[in-house]
Amino acid sequence: MRVDHVGIAVGDLASSLDRWRPLLGEPESPPEVVSAQGVRVAFLRAGETHIELLEPTSPDSPVGRFVASRGEGTHHLAFRVPNVDAALSGVIERGGRVVDRVGRPGARGRRVGFAHPSAFGGVLVEFVEAP
Amino acid sequence: MRVDHVGIAVGDLASSLDRWRPLLGEPESPPEVVSAQGVRVAFLRAGETHIELLEPTSPDSPVGRFVASRGEGTHHLAFRVPNVDAALSGVIERGGRVVDRVGRPGARGRRVGFAHPSAFGGVLVEFVEAP
Repeated sequence: MRVDHVGIAVGDLASSLDRWRPLLGEPESPPEVVSAQGVRVAFLRAGETHIELLEPTSPDSPVGRFVASRGEGTHHLAFRVPNVDAALSGVIERGGRVVDRVGRPGARGRRVGFAHPSAFGGVLVEFVEAP
Repeated sequence: MRVDHVGIAVGDLASSLDRWRPLLGEPESPPEVVSAQGVRVAFLRAGETHIELLEPTSPDSPVGRFVASRGEGTHHLAFRVPNVDAALSGVIERGGRVVDRVGRPGARGRRVGFAHPSAFGGVLVEFVEAP
């Protein structure tokens, strides 16, 4: 199962892009607002995977609260799957908790769904449906 | 620049392998103790990158302190580079802090070196020299 991207919570997208540019260059596409999740994101290619920088659009969004309580840093780990619903059902069947019971629209027009961090030892795992 | 692996700090390697097995299968090789870093690690393949599970071998190792203070979860993000020393020097030249000024032996017989989390917005970045 391939890593689709590593999500990193940042306070300010522009200064964060400056920080990562020497390693990863320019984002693949212009930054995008994902209203449902209260973030503005940019994807930087890193081999076959990506680094997603997530800037909260409001302090009371999930990522806003994450940055306020834990500071900037790695936020989630996303795997590419053929079917998000099946991946989430698999977590539930194995006794794990999920944030989303079924997929929902995410960045880049993809269907996505999150397991609960308790299901993977403190790691917030996202499933992203292959386009 | 390719993501070599994502390092995840865990309390117990065996139960953590059970947790990740449904997604990622078996480790590529038997778990390995990296004495210099006070960890026992296992690498799980995920496409062209890997998930590294790190179990502290003592509570006062860096990863042991990480787990004690923040709990299990994502610990570092490793990029594959042609030359670790040059990658670390690049961080320093751009005004960033590093943990290692030059490379040192790491897991799987590779040369590795860590930047300081402040250099990449709270993300602990490791550079791994391509074999």
